[in-house]
Amino acid sequence: MKKTSRDERFSATERKKEVLDKLSNLGENLYQQMAQGNFPSIKMPSRSIENIYYNPEVRQYVLGDRTVKRTAQNIRHIKPFTQLVWTGYFAQELTTNRKTSTLRDVYYSAQAYEISFQDQAESDNVITDLETVADCAREDLNIFPEERSAIFGDLTIEYTVPGYEGKQLNLTSHPDGVMIGPALTYSEFVKTTADKVIAIEKGGLFTRFIEENVHKKYNALLVLTAGQAPRATRHFIRRLNRELDLPVYIFTDGDPWGMHIAMVIISGSANAAHLRELTTPDAKWSGVWASDIVDYKLPSDPLTELDVKRLHELQRDPRYKNDLWQREIKVFMKHKRKAEQEAFSRYGLTYIVDEYLPAKLEEKI
Amino acid sequence: MKKTSRDERFSATERKKEVLDKLSNLGENLYQQMAQGNFPSIKMPSRSIENIYYNPEVRQYVLGDRTVKRTAQNIRHIKPFTQLVWTGYFAQELTTNRKTSTLRDVYYSAQAYEISFQDQAESDNVITDLETVADCAREDLNIFPEERSAIFGDLTIEYTVPGYEGKQLNLTSHPDGVMIGPALTYSEFVKTTADKVIAIEKGGLFTRFIEENVHKKYNALLVLTAGQAPRATRHFIRRLNRELDLPVYIFTDGDPWGMHIAMVIISGSANAAHLRELTTPDAKWSGVWASDIVDYKLPSDPLTELDVKRLHELQRDPRYKNDLWQREIKVFMKHKRKAEQEAFSRYGLTYIVDEYLPAKLEEKI
Repeated sequence: MKKTSRDERFSATERKKEVLDKLSNLGENLYQQMAQGNFPSIKMPSRSIENIYYNPEVRQYVLGDRTVKRTAQNIRHIKPFTQLVWTGYFAQELTTNRKTSTLRDVYYSAQAYEISFQDQAESDNVITDLETVADCAREDLNIFPEERSAIFGDLTIEYTVPGYEGKQLNLTSHPDGVMIGPALTYSEFVKTTADKVIAIEKGGLFTRFIEENVHKKYNALLVLTAGQAPRATRHFIRRLNRELDLPVYIFTDGDPWGMHIAMVIISGSANAAHLRELTTPDAKWSGVWASDIVDYKLPSDPLTELDVKRLHELQRDPRYKNDLWQREIKVFMKHKRKAEQEAFSRYGLTYIVDEYLPAKLEEKI
Repeated sequence: MKKTSRDERFSATERKKEVLDKLSNLGENLYQQMAQGNFPSIKMPSRSIENIYYNPEVRQYVLGDRTVKRTAQNIRHIKPFTQLVWTGYFAQELTTNRKTSTLRDVYYSAQAYEISFQDQAESDNVITDLETVADCAREDLNIFPEERSAIFGDLTIEYTVPGYEGKQLNLTSHPDGVMIGPALTYSEFVKTTADKVIAIEKGGLFTRFIEENVHKKYNALLVLTAGQAPRATRHFIRRLNRELDLPVYIFTDGDPWGMHIAMVIISGSANAAHLRELTTPDAKWSGVWASDIVDYKLPSDPLTELDVKRLHELQRDPRYKNDLWQREIKVFMKHKRKAEQEAFSRYGLTYIVDEYLPAKLEEKI
């Protein structure tokens, strides 16, 4: 298996070590400041809206040069400063003990340490601060989302989680698909015969693709995003793209919300402007395009007012600058129709696999 | 492994045969009516609200004696009659060809046959008619929900789906949990060392239970319901209870919505009064009870107006007649507080596993 890596050399184990080092450095830095007789402080890039820019080079939102400083010297900073330091401590505990947690768990766990957060929004925000300071995703700190999506195809992985070290699993082992949770996220890739990744929005279609052997016919790893892809899934798609050099094709419903599911996999969200690990800028949105609705004469529904409003927003969104997106937004607006992936069933259940999929995989975008 | 069965002898393969026989009988019956020179008609129990009763004996809603008749003789019936016959035909095709489908797929597929449904609500309704006529769940007809939940623990299953016949999987193979999709639903149970099932509402807690080896410490199969359990998951829990004689304990958030997640696993919904295959009447709601919030001094939030309104509805609901439910509803109303499962993290991440879980499993309900 080729294992070229471009801007990152991901090994789950090395990565964990790197993250722990970052947290240690953060702590050490605080101690040093105090040892020198100073009030400890933490400086980090500002995540305020004025400091978020779209960077066409990396094809995602990034943070600008503004920074903010939390210091124990300022009485108004003491609470958020303490919260941030505790969150770093707690993340270090989680990572060292190899336990995972959720945003909600962190909120409640704080109470065990008599660290008070007013509500979960406040603790979520401090966790994002920690991501910014430590320059890693919260999943690297073992804080995972609730949602789980799935993958299926010929990829053999090796676990690194406690109790499963060295065990391998081939991702065709379970024909309903293999859940993308913490264990899969930090597995090592061992070998694959796949030469592409196909990400699919809907569970029903994911099952259809498995039943129709798309993974074999098209040498593909199939990823279910289950609507908007959970962060762990976006991270995993990026790993497949970077570590295995696999091109990624995304199939969603043909409406502004489907487009945006694809876009968030490709270019991420403004909320995660401080991170680089959740995007796959070379991934392609392969359909359902507005022009597919016309070309394939798909059963369709009229766009709602909300759909149209959303299209106007996307039209102005810097992530949507390129020709494909602008063209498809215009076609949506012209015909004022949307269609779901399942609409292809009007030509029989396997049409989408036998006809549409190969046509779209060959399309030059 | 014990494999006693009480009111059903479930073998996925036998069951498929039974379902195909039912569909054939339905078709044969129509042919016979026509051969005798009559307009074909289909008689089935009425699903109108006046014909739905709570039956304390089977502990779920059931249909009464009223029936409805769809006949080709009545011009107003011709459309729904044709739709129903086509849906039966399509289900037979799916089942014979061992392909699965979703409600939405069926809606679009109808267009390939020039059978017109006004919208998906209409086709969903006809599929429910077919469930009533064929006396089986739509999952038996290979029509599956989009949602997928998961299971983890020492149970070895054998697949019956194409390409996987005879293959076995132990449900501890993947430490993120094994998805409950069509393939798992129709697998045969081979062997288990588990002596109970623990169903959990939240993904984060499901992962925590796996990480803390609850499946080993308590000999349990862990099921993630991921909120309201998808029908396939409820069906699977019933199979674990009936075929393997395993008691089922359900853990949800401590609020009226969590209670109801448990109740729907136990006693089903009024919508499925025509089915017996989605309930587990002996399953127990083990927490988080309103009284647990008080006893364990859990961090809690005030009930909203909507929560209180919901509690009043549940109080009058015949499924909630027994002492436990009525008592807990009263405690909710008295203290006007609710708490999530994760609230136990205030005592440390493993408190819920080390202290709360064993206490609740021993509780006599």
